[in-house]
Amino acid sequence: MNSRRLSAVGCRLMAIPERRINKFVETLKTLLKQKATNLRIHSITATSEAGSGHPTTCLSAADIVSALFFHTMRYDTNDAQNPNNDRFILSKGHAAPLLYAAYAEAGIIPDEKLSTLRQIDSILEGHPTPRFEWTEVATGSLGQGLSLGLGMALNGKFLDKSDYRVYVLLGDGETAEGGVWEAAALASHYQLNNLIGIVDVNALGQSQRTMYAFDIDTYCQRFEAFGWQTIGINGHNFDEILSALDQAKTSADRPTMIVAKTFKGKGVSFLENADNWHGKAIAKGEPLDKALAELGPLNLEPVQIEAPTAVNSGAGRAATECEPPDYPSDEDVATRGGYGTGLAKLGTANPNVVALDGDTKNSTYAEQFMDLHPDRYFEMFIAEQNLVGAGIGLAKRGKIPFVSTFAAFLSRAYDQIRMSAISQANIKYAGSHCGVSIGEDGPSQMGLEDIAMFRAIPGAVVLYPSDAVSAERLVAEAAAHEGIVYLRTSRPKTSILYDADEKFPIGGCKVIRQSSEDTLTVVAGGVTVHEVLKAHQMLAAEGITIRVIDLYSVKPVDAETLKAAAADTNKTLITVEDHYPEGGLGDAVLDAVATEDIRVHKLAVTGIPRSGKPEELLEHHGISANAIVQKVKDVTAV
Amino acid sequence: MNSRRLSAVGCRLMAIPERRINKFVETLKTLLKQKATNLRIHSITATSEAGSGHPTTCLSAADIVSALFFHTMRYDTNDAQNPNNDRFILSKGHAAPLLYAAYAEAGIIPDEKLSTLRQIDSILEGHPTPRFEWTEVATGSLGQGLSLGLGMALNGKFLDKSDYRVYVLLGDGETAEGGVWEAAALASHYQLNNLIGIVDVNALGQSQRTMYAFDIDTYCQRFEAFGWQTIGINGHNFDEILSALDQAKTSADRPTMIVAKTFKGKGVSFLENADNWHGKAIAKGEPLDKALAELGPLNLEPVQIEAPTAVNSGAGRAATECEPPDYPSDEDVATRGGYGTGLAKLGTANPNVVALDGDTKNSTYAEQFMDLHPDRYFEMFIAEQNLVGAGIGLAKRGKIPFVSTFAAFLSRAYDQIRMSAISQANIKYAGSHCGVSIGEDGPSQMGLEDIAMFRAIPGAVVLYPSDAVSAERLVAEAAAHEGIVYLRTSRPKTSILYDADEKFPIGGCKVIRQSSEDTLTVVAGGVTVHEVLKAHQMLAAEGITIRVIDLYSVKPVDAETLKAAAADTNKTLITVEDHYPEGGLGDAVLDAVATEDIRVHKLAVTGIPRSGKPEELLEHHGISANAIVQKVKDVTAV
Repeated sequence: MNSRRLSAVGCRLMAIPERRINKFVETLKTLLKQKATNLRIHSITATSEAGSGHPTTCLSAADIVSALFFHTMRYDTNDAQNPNNDRFILSKGHAAPLLYAAYAEAGIIPDEKLSTLRQIDSILEGHPTPRFEWTEVATGSLGQGLSLGLGMALNGKFLDKSDYRVYVLLGDGETAEGGVWEAAALASHYQLNNLIGIVDVNALGQSQRTMYAFDIDTYCQRFEAFGWQTIGINGHNFDEILSALDQAKTSADRPTMIVAKTFKGKGVSFLENADNWHGKAIAKGEPLDKALAELGPLNLEPVQIEAPTAVNSGAGRAATECEPPDYPSDEDVATRGGYGTGLAKLGTANPNVVALDGDTKNSTYAEQFMDLHPDRYFEMFIAEQNLVGAGIGLAKRGKIPFVSTFAAFLSRAYDQIRMSAISQANIKYAGSHCGVSIGEDGPSQMGLEDIAMFRAIPGAVVLYPSDAVSAERLVAEAAAHEGIVYLRTSRPKTSILYDADEKFPIGGCKVIRQSSEDTLTVVAGGVTVHEVLKAHQMLAAEGITIRVIDLYSVKPVDAETLKAAAADTNKTLITVEDHYPEGGLGDAVLDAVATEDIRVHKLAVTGIPRSGKPEELLEHHGISANAIVQKVKDVTAV
Repeated sequence: MNSRRLSAVGCRLMAIPERRINKFVETLKTLLKQKATNLRIHSITATSEAGSGHPTTCLSAADIVSALFFHTMRYDTNDAQNPNNDRFILSKGHAAPLLYAAYAEAGIIPDEKLSTLRQIDSILEGHPTPRFEWTEVATGSLGQGLSLGLGMALNGKFLDKSDYRVYVLLGDGETAEGGVWEAAALASHYQLNNLIGIVDVNALGQSQRTMYAFDIDTYCQRFEAFGWQTIGINGHNFDEILSALDQAKTSADRPTMIVAKTFKGKGVSFLENADNWHGKAIAKGEPLDKALAELGPLNLEPVQIEAPTAVNSGAGRAATECEPPDYPSDEDVATRGGYGTGLAKLGTANPNVVALDGDTKNSTYAEQFMDLHPDRYFEMFIAEQNLVGAGIGLAKRGKIPFVSTFAAFLSRAYDQIRMSAISQANIKYAGSHCGVSIGEDGPSQMGLEDIAMFRAIPGAVVLYPSDAVSAERLVAEAAAHEGIVYLRTSRPKTSILYDADEKFPIGGCKVIRQSSEDTLTVVAGGVTVHEVLKAHQMLAAEGITIRVIDLYSVKPVDAETLKAAAADTNKTLITVEDHYPEGGLGDAVLDAVATEDIRVHKLAVTGIPRSGKPEELLEHHGISANAIVQKVKDVTAV
């Protein structure tokens, strides 16, 4: 039976006698019910085989997923990355076995592969990751899927102009996550009628009942208040599921949330709506046999999936070179200014670059991009989790998003940033206003743990320009690098250090002062480079020469140059950074020379800073030129 | 004029002729208007003097703050910490000058102190911190105040049984933050009628109009849908402000949100509802003079503030010693189990200890505390930002909160954790399921950057038990330590390593294997301690002896013992940790010996892990006993 033909018929209902329609619908429902049974069988079998996992949450959503995968969604079963496929995001990532089962039933995974679930060499992991190519984006940290879907919906509606829809399956418990409501507000603001969520209200969390149990109305009222079309349904009734999914497609300017009442463990008597079954597999043998007997037979009749309408080739337009930096050598420019200028130029050179900011664009200078490329700028307001989540969604649809806010406020989205690495997202983060050098606004606004945050992300590149030229160049380097890049910029205006044609490859550093007499090497980044240059002058006046390194690439770090400098300068390094002592530039240097006979002395911001003038704070926290001079003397006196 | 007498009269309205009431109300309004004018004058004068700050956001909220501070709120002007004071939280922390102005007008700060705003030696910082003792809790990272207030409201209603109310002033822009909605949901769930929010809807964000401009209804509908009483008002009309604040007090079981339409810059013609004035002080001279002339004269007539009703002494009951650990030496117990048992015992020994968890209590084992002390356990559901924010609120009201979830999901609240340090909160974080040793659930559930996160928090203590005995002991150590403590626990069951009477002081470590022949020292934590012990045996069989250190206190770290061990063992250390290489246990060791001639070789988890059995993953990521044996041989072979 071809469910697609039924769907096509559904669109021409008026022309066909009611009797025939009823028959088609009954046939469709029979097929979808059988598919749902198959999904349930696969889900419990695979988790029992693995000996762990979350079967009951698969069973509550099986009917919804059956309707989505075998009736509603249009996708090219031969091409996971087809740019016009409808997208499916399993926000409740612990239902991964259900996702894999659906792709097996769609003919994409061989059935026998399902039994490799959770094995170390299997792409079918405990929670979905893109190691399985049909996983659009990694999930498993709850409450992130709607933002990820929002990013993809923005892409479809405003950038690719594709008619794909984005379906996000949420758990009810995860709607307690604020990130869900950040996404909900933005989705209606951008009138994303191509974004459709389904909340699987099985009323059971991990450790107890959810706050609202089966109160479907409360969920509906909330999404309604956030500007969504909402439809409450029985999530095990195919008439209601299909009707809701059809209605969702008709929304002119609102996203749709379907709120489905379900039972966790549906279809297996001893699991259904039962406590203490979250995250537990059914034991093989008698319990599994009983469950399988209750579910009834597997029926592997193939189903035909409707292909997407090809409206967009998805081919990114070719990028060209950015215009080079162009600053009068006597002008002071903040690195955040260099970021804004560089990003605007990058936008001109590369049509795949997009920018998102959280109502700080006039501080991060992302507004320079917006002014030049308004069609590729998305204002995300003060909601950093969704800012990052949407960025990931855009990245997974082939764009190169630059996501900016104050460095301090990226901490608000650290879970999403962590997950972006698991999602293998090609995303760029820009944090401005790092360190005490922001001055009077005080500690809440100072990014002082941001390098630690980003260094700990596997594979992430951490860049820290010291002048506007390097800031511009590093923006282009970030875009050219596939993967996560963090760019750290500063608030104060500082002098231009480099010629316009200087290059800043990722993984490099700049030795900006050296002589054969250098007593030690000072390694700095950002504003402290300027402090070290002052210290260099002050010490030179006393006949002491130091080598100075601008460590613009904090990760990866140029270990060879650091070691060579240390070898030349009494095996002694001093690091100085506008960051807390842990996890920052100093630790990057320490790590690079850990197995060598090299001493490293760290200067960094200790204790909670306070309000004050930038120069006062640099002094107070011992990262000023004076502090560096003193440290050089202390170290050399030993 | 004594506004308090008017308020008292307000409660007996029925008994008094309308004419007299009208006169009282008019007098009160005249007083509050003058106070609001004073607040405006102070706010713009102080920011102009400082040359920076956010005057316009002070002006929009001045009338509301006048009504709160000089009519509605009851507080002991001689005692900021009076446990029965109504609490005020400035969630829109950039309006700090308004807060300071209010305390000046209340007679708590000398007026002349206001001109020290933002100076490096002033307690009046750019955003509020507890360096000024009337700041209940630090703000400045938006969207956190409602959670902080929720924690204080939970304390008042359920723990202290005090009748204080908690007032939270929010900006409109910050309601885009998901944390606001996490708190909104929990506040109605706990029926916190003692929690009253006011949204100052001035419709201007930092960089542009907010999403909803002056659409008061939308804000009301949303909070209403989240279970709140809502009242929309004109925030510059004292009749409406006072009526709303009165109505808020009468709510039987719902928190109240007052949504106030205001104008940013209200009272100064060239600021009012004008773009591009966010975060800018008025220039001294003509502009400031014009603004002051428009506002009218300052009138410093003192006002009497209603004192709280003393219902609770606030004196914490004395703590006793915890029952010691008690495990059969042959039983395997997970450190998360030790945490749960230790926390339950601590709850018995210390009546000020409370526990909060985000629907993971059956995994973190916080449920052991809940079972024994249900009145001091708060289920916070899947909403980690609010989990932490509420914890901070409880801490600032004298409780010792233990806040638990998976280590990975604490990353969801890193901004709140960062702010808890600025708030000087005495809060304890417990992250379970750290590292690859959780096994099949995969990378989204593995805490692998949590040590980096917490080490970078100034003053935070980071503890990492390797067995159930040390886990229990470290729970008690955490409670006894004033300040932030992070406890990292593991999922797998491991053997008991220590006697029940062993002590684990913060800042210490345990040398658990040593001989005079040790070739090098291996430093480990948590599950890797067990791997090192296996490696020790394997190497001993080959005639190689190694020293083994259990680094249960990762911060502060026992530098002396590490240095002494290195001095004894060929100046060579190997670190091995179930954490990413950056910012973790290895970096803590590196930092401790940075200026010494000691080589450190790190073993840690590189790359994104996948699903698999714990032992497979330890092996795969090179932190198993085999990997340690190999590394020892490699290092000693050089």
